[in-house]
Amino acid sequence: MNKYLMAVPGTRQISGDDKIFGISKAAQDMAAEVGADKVINATIGALLDDEGNLMVMPSIIDIYRSLSPAEIAEYAPIAGVPSFLKNVKKAVFGKYTPNGYIESVATPGGTGAIRNTIQNYSALGDTVLTTDWFWSPYKNISDELGRKLDTFTMFDADKNLNLSSFSSKVEEILSRQTQLVIIFNAPAHNPTGFTPSDSEWDSIVDILKKNADNTDKKIIFFIDAAYIDFAGEEDASRAFFSKFSDLPENILVIVAFSMSKGYTLYGMRSGAMICVTPSADIAAEFKTVNMFSNRATWSNGTRPAMMILSKIFEDETLYNKVAAERAEFRKVLDDRAKVFIEYSNKYGLEMCPFKGGFFITVLCDNAEEIGKKLQKEGVFMVPIGKGLRFAVSAVSEEKCKIVPEKIAAAIGK
Amino acid sequence: MNKYLMAVPGTRQISGDDKIFGISKAAQDMAAEVGADKVINATIGALLDDEGNLMVMPSIIDIYRSLSPAEIAEYAPIAGVPSFLKNVKKAVFGKYTPNGYIESVATPGGTGAIRNTIQNYSALGDTVLTTDWFWSPYKNISDELGRKLDTFTMFDADKNLNLSSFSSKVEEILSRQTQLVIIFNAPAHNPTGFTPSDSEWDSIVDILKKNADNTDKKIIFFIDAAYIDFAGEEDASRAFFSKFSDLPENILVIVAFSMSKGYTLYGMRSGAMICVTPSADIAAEFKTVNMFSNRATWSNGTRPAMMILSKIFEDETLYNKVAAERAEFRKVLDDRAKVFIEYSNKYGLEMCPFKGGFFITVLCDNAEEIGKKLQKEGVFMVPIGKGLRFAVSAVSEEKCKIVPEKIAAAIGK
Repeated sequence: MNKYLMAVPGTRQISGDDKIFGISKAAQDMAAEVGADKVINATIGALLDDEGNLMVMPSIIDIYRSLSPAEIAEYAPIAGVPSFLKNVKKAVFGKYTPNGYIESVATPGGTGAIRNTIQNYSALGDTVLTTDWFWSPYKNISDELGRKLDTFTMFDADKNLNLSSFSSKVEEILSRQTQLVIIFNAPAHNPTGFTPSDSEWDSIVDILKKNADNTDKKIIFFIDAAYIDFAGEEDASRAFFSKFSDLPENILVIVAFSMSKGYTLYGMRSGAMICVTPSADIAAEFKTVNMFSNRATWSNGTRPAMMILSKIFEDETLYNKVAAERAEFRKVLDDRAKVFIEYSNKYGLEMCPFKGGFFITVLCDNAEEIGKKLQKEGVFMVPIGKGLRFAVSAVSEEKCKIVPEKIAAAIGK
Repeated sequence: MNKYLMAVPGTRQISGDDKIFGISKAAQDMAAEVGADKVINATIGALLDDEGNLMVMPSIIDIYRSLSPAEIAEYAPIAGVPSFLKNVKKAVFGKYTPNGYIESVATPGGTGAIRNTIQNYSALGDTVLTTDWFWSPYKNISDELGRKLDTFTMFDADKNLNLSSFSSKVEEILSRQTQLVIIFNAPAHNPTGFTPSDSEWDSIVDILKKNADNTDKKIIFFIDAAYIDFAGEEDASRAFFSKFSDLPENILVIVAFSMSKGYTLYGMRSGAMICVTPSADIAAEFKTVNMFSNRATWSNGTRPAMMILSKIFEDETLYNKVAAERAEFRKVLDDRAKVFIEYSNKYGLEMCPFKGGFFITVLCDNAEEIGKKLQKEGVFMVPIGKGLRFAVSAVSEEKCKIVPEKIAAAIGK
């Protein structure tokens, strides 16, 4: 759109349809035309069974249906239903709750948590920092709020976390602005599937602390944990949270929780933002400013989804049932990823360092062009930077075997 | 809060808890202490039965429970589920669809529609206009987005719509800014219960058109129709929409729809914004910019709520069942209002001109002080400007008889 008519341009560049949903729609259109068996739609960030149907945890639907009319229909408080706000801390941290003051505020999915964080902890015109491989809506959210998004180089030559790029970018931005929001998608990063190692987490915390030595600066470290329940075994994937204990006052950790993936409730729009801080006042401020943003943006959250989470964490039998179903779902995902990686290696494809989650990213130059070429072959993936994002969540093991050869052919390997 | 710690102040004044929810909580606390029978909580903007329980339409809960797992759990498209976007136009306009290009975008309740409208159709620092009696979150939403909120005098001495105040405020603001968003809550205005007459609607349209003669200016007339389903008979309450046919290109009408009241689904956060414009391009732009804002703020909407609306409008039997239940609910509300007005007149109370809806506003000086005085008597109402908002939606007919005398005593009448 070159010319605004009634709308006010603001600082945004709006380029029509959303990219990810756009490619997915192209896949659906092709399937309608030539038959679903000839199309592989590897764009969708949702867990689908081998026939392409959404995998929904039956225990979750049972709870959904069992709620009373008032549990479904009543307004939730602006901050969220109290039992949800309590239990969401358990859902995120498990056994690894960091030391500090911890407050939670309900948001519509992880997106709402990102939005509120940028709104409340950066100034208009500020730069927000994330990895150079990133979920594209981070840019949209920054644009919508009049902030810039900058990136650091995520991986070094050995495909480990590029700590020196991270460190220098943090320093660089803090040399010219008072506060810095850093968005870090982990574990099971979207789009790469990367999870930092134990020592990489230590280094991240060290870098944050080093920069916080300048007490005129404020660092907000935002962990987008949308995929935490598909990032391997439940305890192991949460152990890193303890490292965020007893940080300096000018480091505020905010964790985004989402019911979309881990509870297969994508369509219910439920999530939360949870802070970790050594200061009771900063925790209270967190609650106040984010409640204000809730009230002034979407008012309050989806009550039935909050009730579902509450009931799971207040009933051990139910909790175990949900955990067992989720473990089965995770196995489907892990099996597919294993096969995709095996065949990708066989055909000489280079990938980002995958550890878990819904996506694997295959490196290639001209990702946009290669992506379009593959679409003609009936393979739909999302080009992101210098790679193509393959959603193992959405493609059967059989098809995970087929795709790497097609990618190799399109690249010319 | 005087000093910001980690948060960035921006342009907002944040004063702790939300006012309406705060007073409601005080009522609940008192009820817990002295017994529910001694407390009248007339703050709640939801329809409660005589025992104080939420009234939820049984047909809606039946549909909620009958949805398939995929209908519940799948992501909705960014703009909303197509069948919802089609049927929401029928839900709002009924038989009175204005001539013009009409597009709809799903939002979390009416709040999301207001937020997107201010974000996309006013500039940072702009003034947004509404009535001097207004739902307080309009101010919060404006603050959150760095806009100012100004008001015109809603009623003249005869308690009719103050058209000259409206007209002069529109002219005044447009003399210094290019575009103007006007928020008009109707029919069954919150907090007064006012609905413009047929000729008042004509005058509103005339004033908009007169100001639109200057084609350098853009007027966005936003109708917050959250209470339309409790504003009297379904057809009669919608007839005014035809008046928004064939307007000039520089008047964009946006109507906010909410499932909270009319479908008693407060806790599901589902609504929509619907535009009316003579220009296909402006309608397309409406879709584009608001989809962008959706993606960058809450991502997408609550699918099960959208499916519920779709199913109602695609099944005549179901539609009739919902309409019949709603008519019963409306009768409860209207009967209470009748009694409250009768007794208020008896005790010489002055009220804003009530025509329908959830609230009646009793005029008084020092509303904050009188409100606090009444709280000691166990009567909880929301002070708004020069009056106290009484939620007939939340108080039994019996209690509606009692309260006016208490108000009169507190005022000293």
